[in-house]
Amino acid sequence: MTFKVFSELSYQVYMPTTFLFNIEAAQTNWQTIIKEQLTTNIACPLEALVSPLGTRFIRTTINEPTDFIITYSATVTTHHQLIYEQLADTFTALSNIQPDVLPYLFSSRYCQSDKLQRFASQMFGNLVGDYAKVAAICDWIYSNIEYLLGSSKSYTSAVDTMSERAGVCRDFAHLGIALCRASGIPAKYFTGYAYQLQPADFHACFEAYINGVWLFFDATRMIPTNGLVKIANGLDAADTAVTNIFGSTFCNYITVSCNLVEDAIFKPFNAWENKEVALSYG
Amino acid sequence: MTFKVFSELSYQVYMPTTFLFNIEAAQTNWQTIIKEQLTTNIACPLEALVSPLGTRFIRTTINEPTDFIITYSATVTTHHQLIYEQLADTFTALSNIQPDVLPYLFSSRYCQSDKLQRFASQMFGNLVGDYAKVAAICDWIYSNIEYLLGSSKSYTSAVDTMSERAGVCRDFAHLGIALCRASGIPAKYFTGYAYQLQPADFHACFEAYINGVWLFFDATRMIPTNGLVKIANGLDAADTAVTNIFGSTFCNYITVSCNLVEDAIFKPFNAWENKEVALSYG
Amino acid sequence: MTFKVFSELSYQVYMPTTFLFNIEAAQTNWQTIIKEQLTTNIACPLEALVSPLGTRFIRTTINEPTDFIITYSATVTTHHQLIYEQLADTFTALSNIQPDVLPYLFSSRYCQSDKLQRFASQMFGNLVGDYAKVAAICDWIYSNIEYLLGSSKSYTSAVDTMSERAGVCRDFAHLGIALCRASGIPAKYFTGYAYQLQPADFHACFEAYINGVWLFFDATRMIPTNGLVKIANGLDAADTAVTNIFGSTFCNYITVSCNLVEDAIFKPFNAWENKEVALSYG
Amino acid sequence: MTFKVFSELSYQVYMPTTFLFNIEAAQTNWQTIIKEQLTTNIACPLEALVSPLGTRFIRTTINEPTDFIITYSATVTTHHQLIYEQLADTFTALSNIQPDVLPYLFSSRYCQSDKLQRFASQMFGNLVGDYAKVAAICDWIYSNIEYLLGSSKSYTSAVDTMSERAGVCRDFAHLGIALCRASGIPAKYFTGYAYQLQPADFHACFEAYINGVWLFFDATRMIPTNGLVKIANGLDAADTAVTNIFGSTFCNYITVSCNLVEDAIFKPFNAWENKEVALSYG
Repeated sequence: MTFKVFSELSYQVYMPTTFLFNIEAAQTNWQTIIKEQLTTNIACPLEALVSPLGTRFIRTTINEPTDFIITYSATVTTHHQLIYEQLADTFTALSNIQPDVLPYLFSSRYCQSDKLQRFASQMFGNLVGDYAKVAAICDWIYSNIEYLLGSSKSYTSAVDTMSERAGVCRDFAHLGIALCRASGIPAKYFTGYAYQLQPADFHACFEAYINGVWLFFDATRMIPTNGLVKIANGLDAADTAVTNIFGSTFCNYITVSCNLVEDAIFKPFNAWENKEVALSYG
Repeated sequence: MTFKVFSELSYQVYMPTTFLFNIEAAQTNWQTIIKEQLTTNIACPLEALVSPLGTRFIRTTINEPTDFIITYSATVTTHHQLIYEQLADTFTALSNIQPDVLPYLFSSRYCQSDKLQRFASQMFGNLVGDYAKVAAICDWIYSNIEYLLGSSKSYTSAVDTMSERAGVCRDFAHLGIALCRASGIPAKYFTGYAYQLQPADFHACFEAYINGVWLFFDATRMIPTNGLVKIANGLDAADTAVTNIFGSTFCNYITVSCNLVEDAIFKPFNAWENKEVALSYG
Repeated sequence: MTFKVFSELSYQVYMPTTFLFNIEAAQTNWQTIIKEQLTTNIACPLEALVSPLGTRFIRTTINEPTDFIITYSATVTTHHQLIYEQLADTFTALSNIQPDVLPYLFSSRYCQSDKLQRFASQMFGNLVGDYAKVAAICDWIYSNIEYLLGSSKSYTSAVDTMSERAGVCRDFAHLGIALCRASGIPAKYFTGYAYQLQPADFHACFEAYINGVWLFFDATRMIPTNGLVKIANGLDAADTAVTNIFGSTFCNYITVSCNLVEDAIFKPFNAWENKEVALSYG
Repeated sequence: MTFKVFSELSYQVYMPTTFLFNIEAAQTNWQTIIKEQLTTNIACPLEALVSPLGTRFIRTTINEPTDFIITYSATVTTHHQLIYEQLADTFTALSNIQPDVLPYLFSSRYCQSDKLQRFASQMFGNLVGDYAKVAAICDWIYSNIEYLLGSSKSYTSAVDTMSERAGVCRDFAHLGIALCRASGIPAKYFTGYAYQLQPADFHACFEAYINGVWLFFDATRMIPTNGLVKIANGLDAADTAVTNIFGSTFCNYITVSCNLVEDAIFKPFNAWENKEVALSYG
């Protein structure tokens, strides 16, 4: 699938401010950036950084009070792997996972898996196979958490969502990740551009490490499972925020879009409809 | 300084269990492991892993119910750098830090810097220089948080400590880290073997990234600043726990010691006593 | 039923300290105190207070450092009402309840019903009749919260228990109350001496206001429903603590017992076994 | 002082709904209601209730979907007592307070004094006299908590405000109450109509029980201390909410005003400017 993605972020900058943007499509073996472009309304150096966990950041520092607009557009081809076999009896052997998976086992800012271990054990502990557990976690979230714009704020974590029972995509992802980790299954946050998301926005989902593969999950069921262009993976929203701002600004607006290239045909795949097949973004 | 460090952890294992131990001295340019030895009371494979952020883990899986004891002993020479100059006007230019420092800027499980930004700004925002800020953060913690064994539990985070005003070394470190990050200063968790710590135990402190160097801080003032053998750095206690256990066990005991090698002379350096000089573990 | 209840609390008092004890059997139309006695190891005035919500407090002030022991013993006959009829379609008409019931509708320190409204609505909202809802709340707590000594601390609230899924009698009661109030059903905390409780201790349960009567519920199922001598009702553990201490003390021990008078025969009634009949302590 | 107070609350009612309004001026020895009027846009019974702690509630039940508007207007004369003497060495002898004051000593939903005891002790424990402590608590809140519209939500409690350091009048009052109770000083929530409050709204403050008198405090310093018409006292916002709604509604608007009667002259008294004199609303 080939998508045209676009985002524009506009800020009033009041004092010298350093921005870390996390809006570029990820460069992975499964996602080809055909072309991409970053522009700003004023001349400023844009520096590309890659964090130790692989996230692309754009860093820029604005030293004068000004209006600042950054625009990203890209054409990206995405590939997926459909996993058909052996989902029924897949296990993440903790005795066998690679070191680079370890960080995604631990409790994090918004995914306090340590506090949810008894719940995870009592609710999903008896299911056989890690895929069955994660699918059940997603179904449980979909059925028990209300998707409600404005119900959460930047502080909201998985434990909050667990009692308050409402949230947005970010909260759905955090709770999914926390419940996976509490079940001994590594899980990571996934941010992206989302095709057919209404209203248009950045989207958050998650990946769980099952049988040696990162499988993709979206407990919101708001868009087709194959409709995403990945921006970043991370522990949670703390290290993959769209913007980290060190200074003083006011955000005027954020605009996001994700469309198919012309004449393309999109065949939606909804992972939650068929538990015999799962999808991986690589 | 050369130390002999030792730890022994004893568990009753009830079912197949994978352990991730984080008890080995770190291998750094500033710390030389002269010799080290890991032994267990039963035959089992001990696998060495290094996480993406550099932490050494020992992984082992015990498949039968049994008593399991793991013992680590090492002789380690530590070196430090004393930083004498320009502490007064040092700044961490966020526009200039390397990507590998980025993870230590973000809010984490036990260091919710996002929730403490106003406090950090109002209390330390007017101080000039990052070193002055971190030194003031440590002084504030030392003066305002009561060191009280048993006052916190595994769930306790920096925000809890902020209101409850009591904790142990781990809580002092978490609050220090959270306040640094809330001030725009990267900070990481530091665990180690501690000389002269009473009662003997693993110790937790933190490092802050100032003017391109990781400076060491310990808001507890319980041991000399130069009395540590580093085990690991991490985001917080979530990714540097002494043990992560996936299975079912009962901990019989944990024994820890840290002594000087024979005939050595230890000249204590207490960083909090002299704001003109700081110490780095590299 | 007639019980002999007993409690003894022993403190080391370090400085002038005022105690508020809440250990006497309640005086109600349904509970007759045949005899009762308060004694202390040192001469001190014992003052009886009754709070606006009806709780009996004993107040005493110890002005000198000393060992202080207070002992309460009483013989109490309890009566109950068994409610057989119309449990199936009982509703608490909020348009009709008396003002003295209002305080038990609101969110309180350990029963944050405001945070659990969506959960209560989604889990119990479709059940018909308030009795059915409260019985289901108790069943849900019994099935989903692990009774685990030492799992909670004095700060633990219903919202914590909701995510951590473990607690003691106090936590079971708090969660029951919070879920009732979140369902629009007034509920109050109930503390008492408990027959056959193992290990012997004060016990906490709750009452819900249904169809004009306060029905008794105990989600722990640890003792017979008719095995209690009521000490107090309150909003939650905040206003019915066994002791409030204003000063500085160390608690040496607390001893509690509750026995039948000689030759009496106890016919246990377990409310959770039969949803056709409920019990009220009046 | 004589004020004309007014409030109008407009709701869309979707299903049968019971409202408990807490908008009427309180009837106290120090506040005379010269005239008052409640009107609704549709015929419905308005029932007056008084809770055990003295709060006036208006209860009404709307059984049909409709627009519902309730309007309250009153002319109220308020009196105050200025306390000039002995503020310097006033103590609340807990060994002496009346039972009706007890509920205001305990931790409550939004005022978790149990969690703030160490902070209160370390910050205010050495001050001599309860008035000095409460005045210092108010000064501390005023200096350390940012008044910021929109910074808190209905769930926000004193412990949240303690770390987040921002809030509105309700949060200032909750933190003040929590710190008083944590210092052993009874304190209660106070809601009212406020003269010269910008923007016009209901206001929240608190009273502390000192030397046998309830003294009035407002850590926001937004209006003159003598500019209030009391609506209610309570434990916190949980039992004195402007509206409790049991049903389903949408709030269209709330309008509030508080003006002097014609030709009256208002002499503002700002308690925070002069620590030699305090004000009581009786």
